[in-house]
Amino acid sequence: MSVTAAQGFTAAGIAAGIKANGNPDLALVVNNGPSLAAAGVFTSNRVKAAPVHWSEQVLRGAAVSAVVLNSGGANACTGPKGFQDTHATAEKVAQVLGGDFNAGEIAVASTGLIGVLLPMDKLLPGIETAAAALSADGGEAAAIAIKTTDTVHKTATVSQGGWTVGGMAKGAGMLAPGLATMLVVITTDADLDSATLDKALRAATRTTFDRVDSDGCMSTNDTVLLLASGASGQVPAYEEFAEAVRKVCDDLARQLIGDAEGASKDIRIEVIGALTEDDAVEVGRSIARNNLLKCAIHGEDPNWGRVLSAIGTTQAAFDPDRLNVAINDVWVCRNGSVGDDRDLVSMKGREVRITADLSNGSESAVIWGNDLTAEYVHENSAYSS
Amino acid sequence: MSVTAAQGFTAAGIAAGIKANGNPDLALVVNNGPSLAAAGVFTSNRVKAAPVHWSEQVLRGAAVSAVVLNSGGANACTGPKGFQDTHATAEKVAQVLGGDFNAGEIAVASTGLIGVLLPMDKLLPGIETAAAALSADGGEAAAIAIKTTDTVHKTATVSQGGWTVGGMAKGAGMLAPGLATMLVVITTDADLDSATLDKALRAATRTTFDRVDSDGCMSTNDTVLLLASGASGQVPAYEEFAEAVRKVCDDLARQLIGDAEGASKDIRIEVIGALTEDDAVEVGRSIARNNLLKCAIHGEDPNWGRVLSAIGTTQAAFDPDRLNVAINDVWVCRNGSVGDDRDLVSMKGREVRITADLSNGSESAVIWGNDLTAEYVHENSAYSS
Repeated sequence: MSVTAAQGFTAAGIAAGIKANGNPDLALVVNNGPSLAAAGVFTSNRVKAAPVHWSEQVLRGAAVSAVVLNSGGANACTGPKGFQDTHATAEKVAQVLGGDFNAGEIAVASTGLIGVLLPMDKLLPGIETAAAALSADGGEAAAIAIKTTDTVHKTATVSQGGWTVGGMAKGAGMLAPGLATMLVVITTDADLDSATLDKALRAATRTTFDRVDSDGCMSTNDTVLLLASGASGQVPAYEEFAEAVRKVCDDLARQLIGDAEGASKDIRIEVIGALTEDDAVEVGRSIARNNLLKCAIHGEDPNWGRVLSAIGTTQAAFDPDRLNVAINDVWVCRNGSVGDDRDLVSMKGREVRITADLSNGSESAVIWGNDLTAEYVHENSAYSS
Repeated sequence: MSVTAAQGFTAAGIAAGIKANGNPDLALVVNNGPSLAAAGVFTSNRVKAAPVHWSEQVLRGAAVSAVVLNSGGANACTGPKGFQDTHATAEKVAQVLGGDFNAGEIAVASTGLIGVLLPMDKLLPGIETAAAALSADGGEAAAIAIKTTDTVHKTATVSQGGWTVGGMAKGAGMLAPGLATMLVVITTDADLDSATLDKALRAATRTTFDRVDSDGCMSTNDTVLLLASGASGQVPAYEEFAEAVRKVCDDLARQLIGDAEGASKDIRIEVIGALTEDDAVEVGRSIARNNLLKCAIHGEDPNWGRVLSAIGTTQAAFDPDRLNVAINDVWVCRNGSVGDDRDLVSMKGREVRITADLSNGSESAVIWGNDLTAEYVHENSAYSS
């Protein structure tokens, strides 16, 4: 039920005409309170889209009454005009919703092609249409409206103890650490302040969205928002709430990987035996980003040599002669050399598990990646033209 | 004329049966002196192949009398047995060449699949065949014998003032900085000591092979050797000699990019206006490695937004609002935003030029890369299986 699973939220998703093909392209999520507490995490790319600059500013106020999201255009690298357009979008939402709404509490998120101005003549009227369509079961429509090359919409919900955390996500390409390319809105009816939401959201994204690496490409528009209405009247214990947020993020992150552009395999890379968690993450990302390995996995080839050559490019602490690698639980590399018979490895399924043991400690991390396919090349060589 | 263009060298390339398809797979290059001065640069991958460990040791002695190279197997991640095989290979060359030759002065290089032991029952007899075939015009055959997925063999020569620098290279995949994946042997008949050779070789590789990035994947086997026979009796000035070595390296590096696996475009990325050369190189590499941009260029799509998103992931000093990007000399991005009409960009040719202006200084660097194609995926998903 997406962003309207939690009490206190309404949402809508409509076609404003931003996309040439007429598909839904505008989503509105409204927090009807009583609380407007919120937290946000944004791309670490230094080239940030106008809506990211805007929403970072909004989040400093720690209150978010609504989020407006569009697909069909990223509004990134669009200069002062792009920022003005984002501002005008928030103003329009405040005006249409009326009452106590003001633009400074309205977050904006955009996704699509970089370097193109949004068609404001379509977007602004679309906000009126979306506002008129707001409903307590509009979460699904909102999730559909933020899709770009996504083949399916992504939602997740956890309910317990009288409160709920629910969310929606989009993202299929430009998926890489810090954050994966995506827009995510998570809502809850728990009654928690913004500082608590921020702590729970950062803890959750650090081990979920930040550990997805589909194609090594970091977006200009990544946005993850967590909004709390307090409408359930429940005040969950922090650990319980944080775990619920983590579960929703993890579920959505897995759905992003499962729908990555052109991918035929989801690759679960678990690095174990690391001296530090940072070492484990660095090694996992290096493996996830290795184009040659991604091709090998596409070809169902348990080419562990490419895993070792990827590990060898990192600064992590390890001895090359003590590295072990398993593919789908067959230890094809032991002590940096030939291990069990690679013909024992079956790679027919969609999920491929790589375990890299650095034999140098007890820390670990899991990174999710994808294979590299001709379809990925096709989709991304034809995307804007 | 490859490695035999310079006086004092003989070479051979033969089929030893290491490759299943019967193609040439063993090369031998012999320095007949009077000098045996030599220098070498090796992969910075921490997972190094047995022949890299061996040859690094040989180079510490600063004298190299011969180089034996095989394709058809990388002898990487092969444990103690792999190192014994490399040692046995050098011993065999010393024994077959006889006289003053000793294994400690014989460099070994291998290329091919990682994690497989070499067929020594074929390689060792092959050394006898190769030694019998040594000739002063064997450079071409040697260059052919080190090919793996290369579609053409690569040689380059510079002659001036009575002395010559010539070389051969192989490499088509796993091409990335520090060094590009490849084997390179360069010879000269200039009479220079090993320290001078080392200085000239490091200066040359730093701005040539180290600035090639075909697929972001760093090999376990990269080896670049420079051997001087002194046979010309000429002692060139350092600057002249260094420039000749740089020219040969640059020529070979361009040939590597031009023959990269599956590539349909060579991408010349020039970063200008950088505060430091390191910044320029970091930005250039980030652009060269961006899979989405590589796909866009394959599709002849001047998608400058992907250039900016790649620049944004670096630590280089710049202001996002002052970035300018030209594709084939059309400034499609000015001041971090939309610039000249992207329809003015023609990308029909094999070479595509990207200029990224950080507007933050006067340093620059050129990185060469390739596009990403379905053929690259195909070639590398089927390579070992």
